[in-house]
Amino acid sequence: MSPATPLERLRARITRLGAPLCLGIDPHPDLLPEGLPRSIDGVETFARGVLEAVGDQAVAVKVNIAFFEAFGSEGLAALERLRGDVADDLFFILDAKRGDIGSTAERYAEAIFGHFAADAATVSPYLGEDAIEPFLAFADRVVYVLARTSNPSAGRLQELMIDGRPLAEHVARWVAERWTDGRAGLVAGATVPDELHRLRDAVPAPGFLVLGVGAQGGDLEAAVASCHGTLAPGLVSVSRAIAGASRDSDWRQAAAASAWQLRDRMRQAGATLGH
Amino acid sequence: MSPATPLERLRARITRLGAPLCLGIDPHPDLLPEGLPRSIDGVETFARGVLEAVGDQAVAVKVNIAFFEAFGSEGLAALERLRGDVADDLFFILDAKRGDIGSTAERYAEAIFGHFAADAATVSPYLGEDAIEPFLAFADRVVYVLARTSNPSAGRLQELMIDGRPLAEHVARWVAERWTDGRAGLVAGATVPDELHRLRDAVPAPGFLVLGVGAQGGDLEAAVASCHGTLAPGLVSVSRAIAGASRDSDWRQAAAASAWQLRDRMRQAGATLGH
Repeated sequence: MSPATPLERLRARITRLGAPLCLGIDPHPDLLPEGLPRSIDGVETFARGVLEAVGDQAVAVKVNIAFFEAFGSEGLAALERLRGDVADDLFFILDAKRGDIGSTAERYAEAIFGHFAADAATVSPYLGEDAIEPFLAFADRVVYVLARTSNPSAGRLQELMIDGRPLAEHVARWVAERWTDGRAGLVAGATVPDELHRLRDAVPAPGFLVLGVGAQGGDLEAAVASCHGTLAPGLVSVSRAIAGASRDSDWRQAAAASAWQLRDRMRQAGATLGH
Repeated sequence: MSPATPLERLRARITRLGAPLCLGIDPHPDLLPEGLPRSIDGVETFARGVLEAVGDQAVAVKVNIAFFEAFGSEGLAALERLRGDVADDLFFILDAKRGDIGSTAERYAEAIFGHFAADAATVSPYLGEDAIEPFLAFADRVVYVLARTSNPSAGRLQELMIDGRPLAEHVARWVAERWTDGRAGLVAGATVPDELHRLRDAVPAPGFLVLGVGAQGGDLEAAVASCHGTLAPGLVSVSRAIAGASRDSDWRQAAAASAWQLRDRMRQAGATLGH
């Protein structure tokens, strides 16, 4: 019998697989394996191949909608087909980082949770509650609010100091205090481990969706530690280090092997923490 | 002979029409006129009808992609058809408020400026330069960075004080100092006129895309004043007060009449300023 809510299913799968590995699918046409066309057909073939090769090792899959949207209606049609191929017990995150006023956020939530039936979405905090509440209005679904991102210029706004604390921490505290049922998590980058630790210390409860491990150089052990002992389950998303493990004809096997290694490292890191 | 760049075309059209009226198209299925189906067909029919009825009065049209994305691939197919119906000399803004790390922002820019051939896009500042530069990499295109939005919870982050200035002003100053060729403008809400004046005083150069006039209660005269005397042309966007002027069978005529009145008020406000 399948547990009732997406978070319950996610928690059960993390227990079963022993590691919070989230498979990130960000198929840039210029980075596809040799032999695949740099078109939406190539993107779809690649995304499906990675999903099929790695899905069993992961507890969640995070698809970045930008790589489909770039092809317009044909891109979203490919995403609709891909969505149909994601197993029911794989927590499906649509990474869209939307953020708009209430009436518009409602339509974005309809796209992500209605049309694409995602279990979770990433959202931007810049417009405040209005941009987030319409997503949480969908029963049982999860949002990850951007707090500290993994990109080079993340600090431009996120490190601005307000009353002695960076804006990212202010966002984290606000989210943690306002929504306490576990359905509002935070996006946190692993590229600056000190910031990740600081954010974790500031808000013990919310589940983190940790980005930047792998090609961006984020700290895997720090990432796993930040997923430990929280109210809602945390996730460590890895994209290019898995999906881009090889650009030769062995790309599916290379992705599976890389995921196996990463999952093993995550298990060991978790064991050290007393998992 | 058509002037070369989107901003030059926009400036010429503002001079010709005498008012910076931007037609906002945000077609919520629940707010469609009587008789139209609450489906993507209804949304497309309504959007096209408003565009045809009002396009001649406006210098720009701003379409919010959320209302199409909510219908997935069929929604974007409708947006592709609608885009094809926008006249060449009407400045086309795709309101998407995207904000992601560099490699992803590049794909969002491809979607908006490549696939949909927009003249301008709205973008979120939360991830810093990485989220904005890929849009400006498209020659001659314009971005409007969210500074102070018009929604009730806008102040949650945007009014946080940093060194004596609200975050929104910090964003405005950063954008104004970093990109000085007129292609980086700012989104500013007219619902709090004092904030709008303050923002305008802080950064004299960037063109504003002013939102919130009409149904949201924003101050039209303050909005027009904030578009006066800047490096790049400013725009005042009005959505529901035009598109939702009537939900009866006369909705096209009502939209055109409302646009005519608003354009006239904008002209008068501009004349007071010495336009």
